[in-house]
This record gives sequence, structure tokens and C-alpha cells, in this order.
Amino acid sequence: MENEKGTTIVVFSGDLDKVMAAFIIANGAAAYGHKVTMFFTFWGLNTLKDETAKAGKKGVLEKMFGWMMPKGPNKLSLSKMNFLGLGPKMIQHVVKKHNAMSVPQLIELAHEQDINMVACTMTMDLLGIQEEEMVGTINYGGVGAYIGDAEQANTNLFI
Amino acid sequence: MENEKGTTIVVFSGDLDKVMAAFIIANGAAAYGHKVTMFFTFWGLNTLKDETAKAGKKGVLEKMFGWMMPKGPNKLSLSKMNFLGLGPKMIQHVVKKHNAMSVPQLIELAHEQDINMVACTMTMDLLGIQEEEMVGTINYGGVGAYIGDAEQANTNLFI
Amino acid sequence: MENEKGTTIVVFSGDLDKVMAAFIIANGAAAYGHKVTMFFTFWGLNTLKDETAKAGKKGVLEKMFGWMMPKGPNKLSLSKMNFLGLGPKMIQHVVKKHNAMSVPQLIELAHEQDINMVACTMTMDLLGIQEEEMVGTINYGGVGAYIGDAEQANTNLFI
Repeated sequence: MENEKGTTIVVFSGDLDKVMAAFIIANGAAAYGHKVTMFFTFWGLNTLKDETAKAGKKGVLEKMFGWMMPKGPNKLSLSKMNFLGLGPKMIQHVVKKHNAMSVPQLIELAHEQDINMVACTMTMDLLGIQEEEMVGTINYGGVGAYIGDAEQANTNLFI
Repeated sequence: MENEKGTTIVVFSGDLDKVMAAFIIANGAAAYGHKVTMFFTFWGLNTLKDETAKAGKKGVLEKMFGWMMPKGPNKLSLSKMNFLGLGPKMIQHVVKKHNAMSVPQLIELAHEQDINMVACTMTMDLLGIQEEEMVGTINYGGVGAYIGDAEQANTNLFI
Repeated sequence: MENEKGTTIVVFSGDLDKVMAAFIIANGAAAYGHKVTMFFTFWGLNTLKDETAKAGKKGVLEKMFGWMMPKGPNKLSLSKMNFLGLGPKMIQHVVKKHNAMSVPQLIELAHEQDINMVACTMTMDLLGIQEEEMVGTINYGGVGAYIGDAEQANTNLFI
């Protein structure tokens, strides 16, 4: 059933630290020749928002979700020790200091390595996230697409 | 070692959003012909509690855990943006509005699709959860049962 | 590509309850003959700190991370119901009462079963964690080592 080498990652969490871990594993696997799919759902969708984009018309609940959710990779908070935003700043500082890659750079590398980034259309509907709000270079799909990719891969993670 | 198609999910988290994701993936996999096992442990056990059931006699610590933990799928909170219960209400509202399935409906569908739902006996002991408190239609097992099922499956997630 | 039986677990979380779950699954898999690798990264690294060890010289940010992060398995908090430390005490109490294994005992068993415990060098650099602060019996590696092990294993979890 399986490809020789494949990795899928469901990016459910939108925490900066977990998103970093997801992209480091995804880019590492791609560098070792894996076919990699990242499937962004729920809060993970915030990672792929274009912070300069304008959303179209929304209902009240959709607007409320929009206000509450971070807009793009530079606005994510930490799963621990967030301290009202100090934690993410500290992490971003040490990433720079150690010449490690920031999340926007990790996303760019993922594109260069042809990692298949898929936004979950069902949760986009639920949370009122529109394609116009997302970066332009991703794919869209549902759980069926994910199941198909996971069947072909050896390593399947939920982050 | 593997079946052609199999999925196991450890449902550790009892957060409404993560439990929704777990059941959507599980039901999706079953619809694509996978043999699916969901293994409920720690806070995930709260998902399978019968909210009308009465527990038997418990010690003090067991009672305290019982008071602190949500009783059934309608009492779960969100992993993010819970806002003292407003977040879950918002999610439940948009689920209904989009004709998506609620967690109780997803559990029912899981039963219809013969998904094997197993409650972890070891953590039930630790947290003082009794079989009398659980819905009547699930199985019970330990980590050995989980390992055996995971060996047969291609996609193994921890949520 | 795969061994007959192998399990890898990325231990990203440093929560007591999730770390317990990780070691219970890892030790269970090893008991059933799996080759098991646990890869500790981000907050999961705190699990393998030696609480009696003294760190060498550190910069300001590294010191701040050091103050904020728990030092060893007895200092971990819960992912839920932590209640300023009451929750972990309750869990430790019921673990003892039911003759279940504490995290330090689970770590010892993991060593006895030759589970390969690897600390992620990249996140150690980022968070300013030094080898001198860690227990003496673990290995060190990067994402490449993890990918290699995951390729050989059937069950790959992210906790």
C-alpha cells in the first residue's frame, strides 16, 4: 500500500512552537526524499493566513472567530509560557540568534521542497475563513484527501 | 505485518475541538474502508461518559476528579478560546448552522461504522472512573490491546 | 522499508500526563518486542533534566528559559486541571495508591528495555539547555536521526 517514503502531518494546533516542530519535521522528511503532505485544520489554518489580505463579507460569528484568531505566522502564540506575547518574542529572538529558521522561512522552504500544503475546507467553513484570507500558494481539500495521502505514507503525525 | 487499510487514534485530549477532529478522521477512514480503533485514555475518557449515569461509591480523590472532569460530549471545553464556555457554544452553533455533525452524532456514526471504541482501563482506575459511568456500547482494554491494533494499522495518531 | 515491529514517539509536550502516556505506550511497545525510539524536543526535554545538576554559564535569555522551565520529571505540571500544582500531586498520589509506575520509574524501565531516548540538539541550542543539565544515559541527535528511525517503524506518534 505504501510509497517507499512518505510523511503526512495534520497541523491542528496553531501554536508557534508546535507549528515550528511541524515544519522542521516536514522539511526534514522532504530533504530525506519523502513525499510530504501537511494538512492544516482548525487553529492550524491561522498559520497560512496572509496578514495583508482583506476578508470578504462575514456573519457575526465568523467575524468574532476572525477577531479572536491570529492572522498569519508572525501572530502565533506559544502552547506554554506565552506570557502575553513575551514567550513568542523570546523564541523568535533565539531563533534569529542561532541562525535557525523562522516560521515564514520554514514555510518558504516547504514550498521550495514541493511539500503539499492543504487547507481543510470543512473547518474553513465552520470558522468562517475564506480563501481570500489565505496565502496564494496552497491547496484545498477535505478529510478524504487526507486519508488517501496518509494511506500512502509511512509516518503520519497529528500535531 | 499490516492490514491493507487500518487506522488507530489515541484520544488522550478531552477538548471538544480535538475530539471533533478525532471523530472526523476516524469516520472518514472507516468510510474509506479502514478498520478503525479509537483508544480513549486520560481526559479523552470524558467523551464517552453517559451524562445521565450515576457513579457507585468513590473515595475522596476519585470524587474530586469526578467533580473536575466534564461528564459527556456536551460538556467538553475547547483547547483554545474557551472563554468560560462561550467558545464551545459558538462551535456548536456553527456546526449546526453548516449542517455539520455534533460530537454525539459523530459518536453515533462511529458506532454505525463499527469503529472499535476502547476505554483505557488503567487510566479509568487512576482517575476513579467506573464502567457504570460510561455509555453502554464501548469496549475496555489496556495498552497491550492498543499496541496490537496499532501494529496492524498504517495510520496511527495521538490526539 | 519497515522493521517488523517498531515504534517512535516525539515527546514534544512536557506535561506530566502526556509524558506518562508517552512512557506507558513506549514501555508497552518494547514489552511486545518493538524497537522503540523516543525523541525529546521543546518542552519534552524537561523530562530528562537531572534535577541535581548545575548548568554552566548562560546568557540572559537562556537563564530566563531555565527559570521558567521545570527541572526533571518530578516538577512537571498537568495539561489540564493543574490548579497551581495540586493536580500533579493528586495524580502522583493515585499512581502510588494503585501501584502504578511514576514517571521516574517509567524512565528507569525504559532504560532497562533499551528504549532509545534521544534529546533534540537543535531545540537544546534554542532553549539554552546544556548536556550537563541532562540525565547521563541518553543520546543526542537532530531531526535527521528521527526521520531515519521513523522510516523503520510502523507506529509513529507525536505527543
